[in-house]
Amino acid sequence: MKFLVIGGDAAGMSAASRAKRRQPDLDITVLEKSRDVSYSACGMPYNIAVPDKEIETLVVRPAQVFRDKQGIDVKTGHLAQAIDPANRLVSGTNDAGIAFEEKYDRLLIATGGTPLVPDLPGFDLPGIYALKSLEDGRRIKAYIHDKAVKKVVIIGMGYIGLEMCEALRARSVDVAMVKPGPVFLPWLDRDLADTAQEEVQKNGVDLHVGYAVKKIEVTDGHLTVRCDGLDLDADMVLVAMGLKPGSELAQAAGLQTGVQDAIAVDPGLLTSDPNIYAAGDCADAVHVVTGEKSWIPLALRANRAGWAVADNVCGGKVELDGIAGTAVFRVFDLEVARTGLTLSEAERAGFHPASVTVKTRSRAHAHPGSTPIRVHMVGDKESGRLLGVQMVGREGAAHRINAPAVALHAKMTVSTFSQADLAYAPPFGPVWDPLLTAANQLLKKL
Amino acid sequence: MKFLVIGGDAAGMSAASRAKRRQPDLDITVLEKSRDVSYSACGMPYNIAVPDKEIETLVVRPAQVFRDKQGIDVKTGHLAQAIDPANRLVSGTNDAGIAFEEKYDRLLIATGGTPLVPDLPGFDLPGIYALKSLEDGRRIKAYIHDKAVKKVVIIGMGYIGLEMCEALRARSVDVAMVKPGPVFLPWLDRDLADTAQEEVQKNGVDLHVGYAVKKIEVTDGHLTVRCDGLDLDADMVLVAMGLKPGSELAQAAGLQTGVQDAIAVDPGLLTSDPNIYAAGDCADAVHVVTGEKSWIPLALRANRAGWAVADNVCGGKVELDGIAGTAVFRVFDLEVARTGLTLSEAERAGFHPASVTVKTRSRAHAHPGSTPIRVHMVGDKESGRLLGVQMVGREGAAHRINAPAVALHAKMTVSTFSQADLAYAPPFGPVWDPLLTAANQLLKKL
Repeated sequence: MKFLVIGGDAAGMSAASRAKRRQPDLDITVLEKSRDVSYSACGMPYNIAVPDKEIETLVVRPAQVFRDKQGIDVKTGHLAQAIDPANRLVSGTNDAGIAFEEKYDRLLIATGGTPLVPDLPGFDLPGIYALKSLEDGRRIKAYIHDKAVKKVVIIGMGYIGLEMCEALRARSVDVAMVKPGPVFLPWLDRDLADTAQEEVQKNGVDLHVGYAVKKIEVTDGHLTVRCDGLDLDADMVLVAMGLKPGSELAQAAGLQTGVQDAIAVDPGLLTSDPNIYAAGDCADAVHVVTGEKSWIPLALRANRAGWAVADNVCGGKVELDGIAGTAVFRVFDLEVARTGLTLSEAERAGFHPASVTVKTRSRAHAHPGSTPIRVHMVGDKESGRLLGVQMVGREGAAHRINAPAVALHAKMTVSTFSQADLAYAPPFGPVWDPLLTAANQLLKKL
Repeated sequence: MKFLVIGGDAAGMSAASRAKRRQPDLDITVLEKSRDVSYSACGMPYNIAVPDKEIETLVVRPAQVFRDKQGIDVKTGHLAQAIDPANRLVSGTNDAGIAFEEKYDRLLIATGGTPLVPDLPGFDLPGIYALKSLEDGRRIKAYIHDKAVKKVVIIGMGYIGLEMCEALRARSVDVAMVKPGPVFLPWLDRDLADTAQEEVQKNGVDLHVGYAVKKIEVTDGHLTVRCDGLDLDADMVLVAMGLKPGSELAQAAGLQTGVQDAIAVDPGLLTSDPNIYAAGDCADAVHVVTGEKSWIPLALRANRAGWAVADNVCGGKVELDGIAGTAVFRVFDLEVARTGLTLSEAERAGFHPASVTVKTRSRAHAHPGSTPIRVHMVGDKESGRLLGVQMVGREGAAHRINAPAVALHAKMTVSTFSQADLAYAPPFGPVWDPLLTAANQLLKKL
């Protein structure tokens, strides 16, 4: 049987590797448009922060190892351009300009996400980058070095933009950030977002909220980002305005797409075609809180879905529960974490939510080194269910978020969560963990 | 109505404070045998570590504040010696040697735990201490200072002993630890315990496992701890052999006791007498994994049970779910955490357990500063349920343990837990969180 995979990153290579381990006689080919497979994309900002560190250290396993040691036919530089479901055929062009065709019995579309880049003048100039592939990272790093970049404008203030602003500040590069929307981190509770905003500004980053970019111009090799009422100079511009699902190939093949144009998959990752799976940032998932389809591109889901596809291709019957939308990022010395729904997402999903925001301490009373930790918690007044949690703090926010994430999978009430026997020792938190303090406060509103 | 509380620490003062807030006209008296109420007992090792820090900084709220600001009649130096349930009367002696009696409508016994001190020669010598009350901490700190203590023997290797050994090493005091049992941290998986043992030894602590102490002798002001085949010299000896429930008063009053002689309480914290509650380290609790009564003295439970008693005394009907036995401590640079059952506890409870131990990394592939993190996970082969987790690592173990703790409350299977959408970002862990790697491995054995 021939298992063909389009896309050689998290979902695609997880699926190929696991399928080969489970069924060594399986004929597996991976088509990857770039020259890189199996790398830690999320690690790129941290690598870019360190001038002398090879970007190749992010590669977990090179293509040649997949070929030689695992017997997986990894074809880099192969861009898939069309899927013919009736004939089980994928066609495309390789980087030598030569057309190719690949037959399949089972196909996995793991085409990932595509950075949103507006169709405005100047966004195709040299020195304008989005950060998605390892090749993007490689180019950005080389450009910073070759042009001795001293000033960067980042368009967008999502977590990739914020991680990159930290990386650039670590290299003493001046950073200005600009976004069209009126609010910094709009998905965060205001009190938590303000804390994050102060942290970014304290580290010398200029934030410009509410400015729509009109065009980018170049003069004497220097770039100018022109907005309504604001011009920003830069040696380099990073476009970090978010992602969309890379679902064009699937759509053109007639596969069903849904929320935000992500490829619609069942709990076993099967698309509307019985021989085609989709996994990773191009596919949708059921949200465990709403029970509805949602599109939240995250690395763990991509890896997990890749494994599930491998198991199902090899005759298994694995179904995934869904996602809670758990995410964390670091911005300078601050940890920002979330799981589940925000208050407004909960309202839109038809719940009757209430929320609280509490500020407590990261360590016990009188313990040295304690810092503020903020928790925002959302619950449903009708069912009493826990719907979402957000945390911001200098320590203990990142890992703490996993406790409410598990509670969301269990569809736990705030009341039951408030009774959880969480760990306590003075170096790690107050007797009443910040999560429990938030739950106790929220209970009064439910 | 008169609400009388015996014991002014975590459970007792939580109950008194909350009851007064809920019902300001309630007549509340607290009998506390020592001169201290409402302090962070768990913070004592960290305070003792710093010579110039007043032990009083651990006091959260002094007795006088409870009296003046909250209208709670806190009677320190009042030792309760007998309960007469038929006449709703508590009698005792105060520190002036004067007998007293207190009537009650509702009584809370919050007498805490009592350090285990063996009935052997020399354990009553000057310079021999257990660490339980703030007065113990005060005396230990003064003794270290006054006698210029350079060498301490700690009898016992539980978490109080280990926290104290860290505190004493921070003051450059030589520490030897001795215990009769043959195994260091016997409730931890061997691989995890070995890691903790290496950390302790690396910090210059002499560990003597498997030596029963026979007596303590004094010669020229210096102490000698004599064991079979081992003599240990010391300026001071700390007895940290564990706790027993402080249930003598309750037993003498005819109240029902159970597991390990802890006072038996129902989910609303009521004892076998309809007017008497018990809470904190003197009382038992239902274990959420086994559904059986258990006795695990922990600060969060004491506070939570105190609140529940207050609510019930004020006419509420609060029932507590139970405990998962979640605990964490730091020993030097290592975090040691557990929740739920060990493999042998699971066997004794009638499960058919399997377990795995995995060693992964605290941060993502190629991320700087990554350290090993070890996870031991126990599941049930019959039901598939998650039964317990242990973790040891330099970072990320303490807060991570709360995710499986919540899963234990939800009686989650290992399979469902393995699907949890946990947070990922390179500074905080691998894509597959160590907990998920452990769950995935454990699934193969279930």
